[in-house]
Amino acid sequence: MSELSEFSLIKKYFENSTVERDDVLVGIGDDCAIVQSKTHQQIAISVDTLVEGIHFLPNTDPESLGHKSLAVSLSDLAAMGATPAWFTLALTLPEVNADWLAGFAKGLANLATAHNIALIGGDTTRGPLSITIQVHGHVDAEQALRRDGAKVGDSIYVSGTLGDAGAGLKLKQSQLKNKSGTATDLIFLQQRLDKPTPRVALGQSLLYVAHAAIDISDGLVADIKHILEKSNVGAQINLDALPVSTELTQAVGREEAEKLALYSGDDYELCFTVSPEKDSELVNKIKDTYSKVGTITDDNNIVFIKSGQEIELTGAGYEHFSTES
Amino acid sequence: MSELSEFSLIKKYFENSTVERDDVLVGIGDDCAIVQSKTHQQIAISVDTLVEGIHFLPNTDPESLGHKSLAVSLSDLAAMGATPAWFTLALTLPEVNADWLAGFAKGLANLATAHNIALIGGDTTRGPLSITIQVHGHVDAEQALRRDGAKVGDSIYVSGTLGDAGAGLKLKQSQLKNKSGTATDLIFLQQRLDKPTPRVALGQSLLYVAHAAIDISDGLVADIKHILEKSNVGAQINLDALPVSTELTQAVGREEAEKLALYSGDDYELCFTVSPEKDSELVNKIKDTYSKVGTITDDNNIVFIKSGQEIELTGAGYEHFSTES
Repeated sequence: MSELSEFSLIKKYFENSTVERDDVLVGIGDDCAIVQSKTHQQIAISVDTLVEGIHFLPNTDPESLGHKSLAVSLSDLAAMGATPAWFTLALTLPEVNADWLAGFAKGLANLATAHNIALIGGDTTRGPLSITIQVHGHVDAEQALRRDGAKVGDSIYVSGTLGDAGAGLKLKQSQLKNKSGTATDLIFLQQRLDKPTPRVALGQSLLYVAHAAIDISDGLVADIKHILEKSNVGAQINLDALPVSTELTQAVGREEAEKLALYSGDDYELCFTVSPEKDSELVNKIKDTYSKVGTITDDNNIVFIKSGQEIELTGAGYEHFSTES
Repeated sequence: MSELSEFSLIKKYFENSTVERDDVLVGIGDDCAIVQSKTHQQIAISVDTLVEGIHFLPNTDPESLGHKSLAVSLSDLAAMGATPAWFTLALTLPEVNADWLAGFAKGLANLATAHNIALIGGDTTRGPLSITIQVHGHVDAEQALRRDGAKVGDSIYVSGTLGDAGAGLKLKQSQLKNKSGTATDLIFLQQRLDKPTPRVALGQSLLYVAHAAIDISDGLVADIKHILEKSNVGAQINLDALPVSTELTQAVGREEAEKLALYSGDDYELCFTVSPEKDSELVNKIKDTYSKVGTITDDNNIVFIKSGQEIELTGAGYEHFSTES
């Protein structure tokens, strides 16, 4: 079989795994897909590439990888409050491996079905393994959750728990030693790394409530900085309030858990800011777990608080600010 | 400088090179871009990946590569008759090289400006060099040029000349010997490979005229087969009518030129079918060069005609059908 036909067969794996949507007028198989946008909404678009050896380890389970490739892009739609609609898949493969493709397509299709997002096209090429997924969703541009809307006095929230995915990676790579995590704890952390949950419904329920939002892909500190820069504000973050899972604390202890919560990536939780007057609305409207971790300030930096005291963080860990000078 | 900040700086090369459009409500720099679709049109979407060593030679001039990366996707919009609007760029780079990035961004920006298509977002990652560009354009879905619309009796046309890009590649790789092409001829062929012209205006002018269209990326025979399969028809192709450039004939001779026109890719011309009654409309409406190369038949295969006789083509060249049996 020629390379061309071998690769064109790949699309069969994906054609059968897409959801049907009335707004897909031309799907896979022509020069372009054609889609129909909603009349009174706008289109949110995001693209992410995962490269083997950089964003995932060689020999990652293909089903997890299919899930994760779509999850990281859905997470961007979540961070804007957009409703998923369509996606494309550009897949570069070193070889055509039927088992791998079936697993990858399954992981992708399961998550796509859960979010009613249709695969409308793509490109399959030969080369070092990498996956580029572009997602499209509907959103009211006036209400979309942006990075530049945080206001001084806003409460800072994060969804779920932080640091799990980072611990999963570091434990796997033996950069961290397991303290007293059970096998179940370790599987949980690994799952958080391999199969992140994009907070799509949460993002949508934050419309009309949150001032700003971002998804946490590079770590809370790295990502909240984007909100602070775009909004021209600062933040005070209370380390004692950082939501960490019991699984994480079991495996690495509370201090390491806090560091991971601040600095490790791949959790794909949302960080969002809400004015104090809307805190009660949040309670009524949001079904997902979320925690208040700090406050937006008029300072142009991040201040960390632990046990009521301002502290300075170094790469190595925490140092009380007062002991520094 | 950390890898993260080094890579985030890359976007500066591209931020300054995008065109401004009123329908881009949120551009580069948030979790998603947000765009506004036209009310009475639909959105055509296509994605293509170019991998170093597969789709372009190592050490390809970055400015050409920037041009070509966008051109191949614009060509898909052209093949649907869509009007370019927005694109994203997912760029995987082995290292951050300022000269390379400046050249690539320049080639990309020049073509983007020419087609008024705005860069709205992207992702930059570390890894083996590859470029994935996704384009979005507006089109009336009812009128869009599809692969499945060809009718028996339609004339088959191609734009421009065919085989130039294939010759450019084969001459460069010494798979073909230059016969009597001048330096200017060879530069022309190389340019056709490196800087293809997406036939965007032609595609738009074919709306309401052509029954079916496709862009020629893999070669006329390979690509017209998609139209034949989707439309459930056949084709008769007249080899004497294949449009080949004088530069190509100079370099490789007429017989080799015809083979290249049929089987070599990367020309990014359009192939389209038109009912005989609309032939005159074509003359009045189309400003681009185009040639009639055959007719759609009710047979389910491709028949090749040379000097008025049906011939059979083999990989090696032409053989008269009658001499086969």
